[in-house]
Amino acid sequence: MVPMIKIAVDLQGADRPQTELVDGALMAVRENEELYLYLCGNEQELTRYINERGYRTERIEIINAPEVITNHDDPAEAFKNKKNSSLVRAAQLYKDDPDIGALVSCGATGAIFVTAMMMLGRIARISPMLLVELPRIGGTPLCIVDCGANVDCRAEKLVDFAHMGIAYMKAVGVAAPKVGLLSNGAEDKKGNAVVKQANELIRANIPEFVGNVEGTSVLTGEADVIVCDGFSGNVLLKTIEGSAKAALAELRKLPGVQDAVGEQLDAVYRKYDFNTQGGAVLLGTNIPVIKGHGAANSGTMYNIICSAARLAKNGLVDKIRAEFAANAV
Amino acid sequence: MVPMIKIAVDLQGADRPQTELVDGALMAVRENEELYLYLCGNEQELTRYINERGYRTERIEIINAPEVITNHDDPAEAFKNKKNSSLVRAAQLYKDDPDIGALVSCGATGAIFVTAMMMLGRIARISPMLLVELPRIGGTPLCIVDCGANVDCRAEKLVDFAHMGIAYMKAVGVAAPKVGLLSNGAEDKKGNAVVKQANELIRANIPEFVGNVEGTSVLTGEADVIVCDGFSGNVLLKTIEGSAKAALAELRKLPGVQDAVGEQLDAVYRKYDFNTQGGAVLLGTNIPVIKGHGAANSGTMYNIICSAARLAKNGLVDKIRAEFAANAV
Repeated sequence: MVPMIKIAVDLQGADRPQTELVDGALMAVRENEELYLYLCGNEQELTRYINERGYRTERIEIINAPEVITNHDDPAEAFKNKKNSSLVRAAQLYKDDPDIGALVSCGATGAIFVTAMMMLGRIARISPMLLVELPRIGGTPLCIVDCGANVDCRAEKLVDFAHMGIAYMKAVGVAAPKVGLLSNGAEDKKGNAVVKQANELIRANIPEFVGNVEGTSVLTGEADVIVCDGFSGNVLLKTIEGSAKAALAELRKLPGVQDAVGEQLDAVYRKYDFNTQGGAVLLGTNIPVIKGHGAANSGTMYNIICSAARLAKNGLVDKIRAEFAANAV
Repeated sequence: MVPMIKIAVDLQGADRPQTELVDGALMAVRENEELYLYLCGNEQELTRYINERGYRTERIEIINAPEVITNHDDPAEAFKNKKNSSLVRAAQLYKDDPDIGALVSCGATGAIFVTAMMMLGRIARISPMLLVELPRIGGTPLCIVDCGANVDCRAEKLVDFAHMGIAYMKAVGVAAPKVGLLSNGAEDKKGNAVVKQANELIRANIPEFVGNVEGTSVLTGEADVIVCDGFSGNVLLKTIEGSAKAALAELRKLPGVQDAVGEQLDAVYRKYDFNTQGGAVLLGTNIPVIKGHGAANSGTMYNIICSAARLAKNGLVDKIRAEFAANAV
């Protein structure tokens, strides 16, 4: 029997219905014959939808969890009271089947966090953090960590983010990832108090460190891992998206541009439309959680399941453990 | 006699020679007959250069200050020891002639700061801050404050930044500027500890507040003033530039694009090339200091002198005083 990559999928809690998101899940399972998906949602509706469309039902298992956690729910309350929600049930599957390699959801971020922390277990001593992978022009991707989980950080945490980013980049195939620290200047002495201290700690502990990185050179510089606190990282990520799209939209409005290069413009624009392209990865729990945007469509669901499968197959969590074990203090 | 707008111009300390930068200054004075410029630099060289080219010498006065402060100088030492530098002499002119309305320099940032603080005097109770004005698509500009002067801030300072931004936008012709607070989410409760507290303070004190702004909507949203600490503001500003340029460069590489729309691409690209376009404004001293990038050319010098003239003419400092007086606590 082929070794399976098992993924637990929460199909509810996003803007679009589970019957749309499941299309992406089924596309992923059809393409990748190592993949085995637990599809959590309203079983009756999902079964009818899948049967009506004549989808094959190999390597999928529908888990009945009809309750929905929304953005309006208090995360902790929702976790406590909605035990039959697709999110909580998806996380619970990991307790029954430790072969599950990742959890995928496009639901409410806060509830995903609470549920992951309560149900998936933490990798020893590591605080959970959010990593986002970005495409880079003409080359390997880069990642930003943390993108929003830890908005107030001590400098030591930024060292953890660096280790986590290194492990992640290795899991996606970058053999010797380089680490940069987001700052307001390239020189070591630049930064706010936390960043200045983090620069010293990272320089002392992480040989892959290439120094401070400014906002101008995140997309074009040599660093594969951009380290920052969750507040700055969130500003960075959203500003990259907003500014790239604004500049392209501005160009499109100029006379003749749309007619001449509309298709090329669309292609570049889509690359910077992070919301519908990929997801953020919650790291620090015993299996990674890939969180797609609430506005996800079936394409997003397909993308994030493929990402989850790749991370599970490439042993991301083992790489994280190895990275931290090698650098234990 | 026409009322004069007097500007003190430091022509040295940038990457390019004073003889190149002075071209921009002379262009500005030729175009604007209210303008009177004190040109600080090596008098002998400047006089020869201006005479050789047959420039008119009305409304300019060359101040001999041959010493140069560079980026390698310690700012405080340089201020103390280089009293005959073009920067220090330019600032000193204000002591002799209080009609001077602004100081312009493309020299070393740290030295400009120290010199401004020591020579120009502070507007009561306000910490100096750096404001950058950005063009906005199809409309009025916006500004980011602080862009790097205060990398570690208490929440109260962000309220000052908001007042300063309002005064600035009024001075550039926006009658009722709206204020947004940079955060990692649009909801009031989002932010790091300082931003959450700043949200409450700004909401309580500034009627022009329209709420938190995310990186995705800085360029396209309704806020005319983006308030943030100097670290986040620097990341924001540089990321806007880097991402817009990266996306446009990526598009340019696609087959056929350069030939079809190369000129339009250049036009949009230039708009996001903040370094050579404009300058940052140091606010909080008795006259504003407009600081161009070290890589400034004659066009940059022309642009920042025009900005300085506009701010002086429109009574920026009076507007700042009025804004703070109206909101005194």
